[in-house]
Amino acid sequence: MKACRQALLLSSSNCHGYSFLEFAKQEISSFLKKNGVTQLIFVPYAQNDHDDYTKNVTTVITPWGFNVAGLHTYPDPVKAIKEAKAIFIGGGNTFLLLKKLYENNLVNLIRERVYTGNLVYIGSSAGTNVATKSIHTTNDMPIVYPPSFDAIGIVPFNINPHYIDNLEKDTHKGETRDQRINEFIEMPHANLVLGLREGCILHVDGESLVLKGVAGAVIFKKGESKVEYPVGTDVSFLLNN
Amino acid sequence: MKACRQALLLSSSNCHGYSFLEFAKQEISSFLKKNGVTQLIFVPYAQNDHDDYTKNVTTVITPWGFNVAGLHTYPDPVKAIKEAKAIFIGGGNTFLLLKKLYENNLVNLIRERVYTGNLVYIGSSAGTNVATKSIHTTNDMPIVYPPSFDAIGIVPFNINPHYIDNLEKDTHKGETRDQRINEFIEMPHANLVLGLREGCILHVDGESLVLKGVAGAVIFKKGESKVEYPVGTDVSFLLNN
Ligand SMILES: [Ca+2]
Ligand SMILES: [Ca+2]
Repeated sequence: MKACRQALLLSSSNCHGYSFLEFAKQEISSFLKKNGVTQLIFVPYAQNDHDDYTKNVTTVITPWGFNVAGLHTYPDPVKAIKEAKAIFIGGGNTFLLLKKLYENNLVNLIRERVYTGNLVYIGSSAGTNVATKSIHTTNDMPIVYPPSFDAIGIVPFNINPHYIDNLEKDTHKGETRDQRINEFIEMPHANLVLGLREGCILHVDGESLVLKGVAGAVIFKKGESKVEYPVGTDVSFLLNN
Repeated sequence: MKACRQALLLSSSNCHGYSFLEFAKQEISSFLKKNGVTQLIFVPYAQNDHDDYTKNVTTVITPWGFNVAGLHTYPDPVKAIKEAKAIFIGGGNTFLLLKKLYENNLVNLIRERVYTGNLVYIGSSAGTNVATKSIHTTNDMPIVYPPSFDAIGIVPFNINPHYIDNLEKDTHKGETRDQRINEFIEMPHANLVLGLREGCILHVDGESLVLKGVAGAVIFKKGESKVEYPVGTDVSFLLNN
């Protein structure tokens, strides 16, 4: 069976020079329309205030022509996801998000429904981390202990959202982002890492992966120098690594 | 029983303007001498190359008048720690370190031996994170999955090593260090967080806690603004929170 997965994985919801989600408006709109989606469930688990977070997202997306409801407003989250055609998992803290997804028995369910083409997936930041193989390359602090770092696995590699080149001051001795990613790459269980710059969107259409949005991405592979890819690049080869 | 713990918790091994561990030379030397220690076991688990890492540390510390041996060179790590008078746990990746400590059944053993005054503890960076209540406030990437985030617990609160004020560019939308720490503080299981600036050393002497080294620290508490404390401050009150 060929994968029918349909996903948009955003590096972040905020991007310099744009209002909240504005940089992704056109991609999200055409992606949802192409998939015949008019309403979606927003998953606010990565933040503490579910009502507030859902309201902020709804305020932005509703004018684009889509109905949005927070998953936390449904009495049975499993039933809600089983009946949903599309979900949007927002950013916040990746550990908090993944723990809550496991607690609600949603990790395997979302994977199955995405792979069988029954659920369209949009993720941003932490919502992108949990869409990948595992959360090993999140930037977030481990504020809660999830039952596993394995994630939904819509793509079989890891993503580092908010990717940025060295930003530490020369005088600071903490690791740079590249050093952190390379620490992971050295692990025996590590696969490659796609660093999505803020403004970059990975569009997953079955077996096709394309970089969209307003910024590019960087690929880290064990034993190789990082390679930069601009917006528009077909990175489907990432599925064969 | 009053706690007999003796520990030096370094924010990092590197500090701007000093060679490796140089900023802490005097504190480490007088701490070990005061405790009658002439040899110590170095724990290189936070990095992959144990031989190389141990060699780097040994090269620096041996001239100070102390014998150093890597824990990985002992056939039985539990036996080695049971017979040791002092350990130094170095930095690297906190998740890798804690996982390895659990795999070798050392977490509870080290706690017991430190609390009964039988083991003197020095930690740096990741080695400081694992000395606290839990690793929830490490800066490291979660490159491996440890069996728990609970740590040795020489102090009953959390530490953020390499603490630094906002360093992200204004145009970058990833969380700042303060935002990350505050995400943790909001959790129901969170206690206060001591942010150790690079160059800061927390000296634990039984029930006395004092900031030493060449830089101060910052305390984060739920619902309060962060408070800055300079080198020399007695922060023993942290034990009563
Ligand atoms: Ca985040
Ligand atoms: Ca580190």
